[in-house]
Amino acid sequence: IESRRDTDLVNLMEDIHYADVADIIDELNEDEATYLIKLLESDKTSDVLTELDEDVRESILSNLSAKEIAEELDELDTDDAADIIGELPNEIIQEVISELEDREHAKDIVDLLRYDENSAGGLMAKELVKVRESWDVLKCVKEMRAQAENVTRVHSIYVVDDSDKLKGRLSLKDLLTTSTRTHISEIYIPKVDSVNVNEKPEEVAKIMSKYDLEAIPVVDEIGRLVGRITIDDIVDVIREEAEKDYQMAAGISQDVEADDSIWDLTRARLPWLFLGLVGGIGAAGIMGGFEEMIKQHAVLFFFTPLIAAMAGNVGVQSSAIVVQGLANNDLKGSVGNRLIKEMLLALLNGSILAAILLLFTWFWKGEFLTSLSICLSLIAVILVAGFIGTFIPLFLHKRGIDPAIATGPFITTSNDIFGILIYFSIAKVILGI
Amino acid sequence: IESRRDTDLVNLMEDIHYADVADIIDELNEDEATYLIKLLESDKTSDVLTELDEDVRESILSNLSAKEIAEELDELDTDDAADIIGELPNEIIQEVISELEDREHAKDIVDLLRYDENSAGGLMAKELVKVRESWDVLKCVKEMRAQAENVTRVHSIYVVDDSDKLKGRLSLKDLLTTSTRTHISEIYIPKVDSVNVNEKPEEVAKIMSKYDLEAIPVVDEIGRLVGRITIDDIVDVIREEAEKDYQMAAGISQDVEADDSIWDLTRARLPWLFLGLVGGIGAAGIMGGFEEMIKQHAVLFFFTPLIAAMAGNVGVQSSAIVVQGLANNDLKGSVGNRLIKEMLLALLNGSILAAILLLFTWFWKGEFLTSLSICLSLIAVILVAGFIGTFIPLFLHKRGIDPAIATGPFITTSNDIFGILIYFSIAKVILGI
Repeated sequence: IESRRDTDLVNLMEDIHYADVADIIDELNEDEATYLIKLLESDKTSDVLTELDEDVRESILSNLSAKEIAEELDELDTDDAADIIGELPNEIIQEVISELEDREHAKDIVDLLRYDENSAGGLMAKELVKVRESWDVLKCVKEMRAQAENVTRVHSIYVVDDSDKLKGRLSLKDLLTTSTRTHISEIYIPKVDSVNVNEKPEEVAKIMSKYDLEAIPVVDEIGRLVGRITIDDIVDVIREEAEKDYQMAAGISQDVEADDSIWDLTRARLPWLFLGLVGGIGAAGIMGGFEEMIKQHAVLFFFTPLIAAMAGNVGVQSSAIVVQGLANNDLKGSVGNRLIKEMLLALLNGSILAAILLLFTWFWKGEFLTSLSICLSLIAVILVAGFIGTFIPLFLHKRGIDPAIATGPFITTSNDIFGILIYFSIAKVILGI
Repeated sequence: IESRRDTDLVNLMEDIHYADVADIIDELNEDEATYLIKLLESDKTSDVLTELDEDVRESILSNLSAKEIAEELDELDTDDAADIIGELPNEIIQEVISELEDREHAKDIVDLLRYDENSAGGLMAKELVKVRESWDVLKCVKEMRAQAENVTRVHSIYVVDDSDKLKGRLSLKDLLTTSTRTHISEIYIPKVDSVNVNEKPEEVAKIMSKYDLEAIPVVDEIGRLVGRITIDDIVDVIREEAEKDYQMAAGISQDVEADDSIWDLTRARLPWLFLGLVGGIGAAGIMGGFEEMIKQHAVLFFFTPLIAAMAGNVGVQSSAIVVQGLANNDLKGSVGNRLIKEMLLALLNGSILAAILLLFTWFWKGEFLTSLSICLSLIAVILVAGFIGTFIPLFLHKRGIDPAIATGPFITTSNDIFGILIYFSIAKVILGI
């Protein structure tokens, strides 16, 4: 198809949804992709651009002039346009903005660039329908018609006062069933959920999904309506948040994909492996301190991987449950109660596992005291791992740190070391060495 | 507040959003909760019921008569009503359905009960606005007005033919700007995304978030329009999916929360710990086979936890990236290429870590050959772990099994055993024992 049969290509692409065109372009090389983007009409390509992989988009845009980029951005909603501009090199941003034809649009985009990407302000779009409470129904309908042209989906009509403060929302039905001379202040609904521009995206996502909202207005520090966040952006936030937590738990620094370069993947993975290496060296150091025990009770050493693995597994389980509870806001009761519950759980699980292990080791080696020390250690290690796994994320959360970093290699490594230390200490006492 | 001051309570609850009322009720005991639900009006309580924790809802409903439950369900959308009925004991379902006042509503609910909960059919609601292509605009507007009364948010107007087959959708603007005698077949847009009733919820979520849809029509096997899925239900699907994968990776059988009973938590956690125990015993067995080496090279044993931990970490990293890539549909290229890439990555990471470890162990113990075998083993183990971590989820996916089970304890345990076996085998060869 890449033999430059332009008209065929255009016809073909016309029928395909822009998200699918984006998938196709992601697969092409840079020249082909740029060629295709230039070929298609800009109302389609602008949507395609928003759906592309970040690195593909970057390389395509670097082949376009500032004027060409500006033409694409003119077609986009302010939030998508601001996201794309935000990725451009600084010297080009100026140029692109000055090339934007619609000056109102340009102003909105510049406004949006000022907000932190990781806040409600960074998510919102300027497109919305708002009316003043002082207007009458007739004026309101006229203004709304003009505003609605720029808004893909209206969702809600927001009501503001003369200083742009958000007062409430308007039901379309009420608007259509009252006389044209009624003032908006008499018919609007004064209850409306809103979020502050500085709110974190995760919080916005929680609020919108709790109350099943499809759009939420964003207000600034003094209550002025500055934008609107729609559910499709929130779906992306929820996905990204889940991916971040998942990757953290797996020991991968956030934001890599299977198709990133080996170098990017190494940078994301190596630090965590290095942490594991340090932990392993620590464990070796501890075992070195118990070297004399080896000659008499070699069997003890055979079970260090088991003890370390159990400590790691229990720690990850406990912390995952706490991290998820914190994320969903459904952790109830005091920290003390939670720890007591986790300890009871650990005692129950630990005893069952220890009983199985005791029978097995006793049968295998016939040394009751050795078996007993392995099993008692197992219970102790599970208790400690459960405690650490529950306490650390709660502690980090209290300090305002994302508790998700406490899952994965971090908790596994520390539990490995504690586990081995506890194990050999208990064995030393019981076997009286 | 629970001193039965009825009117005060009703007034207080009136002002609170139903999702918040549900949060309050989740905290109360069974009697208080039932009392509060009976006190409030059923247009509010029905919404509250949908937001409650499953076990709280169950205990409240067990205190209500079939007639009372039916009254609540009459207020709800068909999808929520069907979800709640689906949780009731079989003998009560019959009774409740026969008590439903709105027979049309009852019929829709019964229809929905037939679909598997884990399919598009189980997610969809019957509430939607549909018009026939044979109608003219006048009839269409009249019918739409009647239908829209039962639909909270209209989103799209779907067009069907006389046998109810989905043909396309109608733009409200086109409808309002054409003469009343035009036939719908002349003005509708024949392109509309839809999903099959048997489609998996995860697939529906992917389609809706890819195309930024707020609602999608559901068709049966022969293309008839049977329902509609809205974005708020999909947000829940995405959340649940992410939680399931996260818990799998942490070694927790799906669907427990921090506030579940110790018994439920044990059932979710113990099987994975048992798997770890078996793995640990296996590792002990392997080490037992190399017992003679202990006397001469005790230092080798000190590094078993390190080798096991690195094998586990690398395996989890590799599998997490593959599982996530599969979930997001962005894994490109052949299995062979992916494995080669992972091997190169493992070789790079492994060599860096091994070099650090070599310097450390050589400096610590001064035995070059021992240090060398530890480090070569580390590289080999990382290679094997990366291979297993990449291959297993791809293999499971090909077989139609959820690859997420390959993350977490499963991969850690098998890598532990392989790692230790490789470690001692290499050491044996190098040290010539």
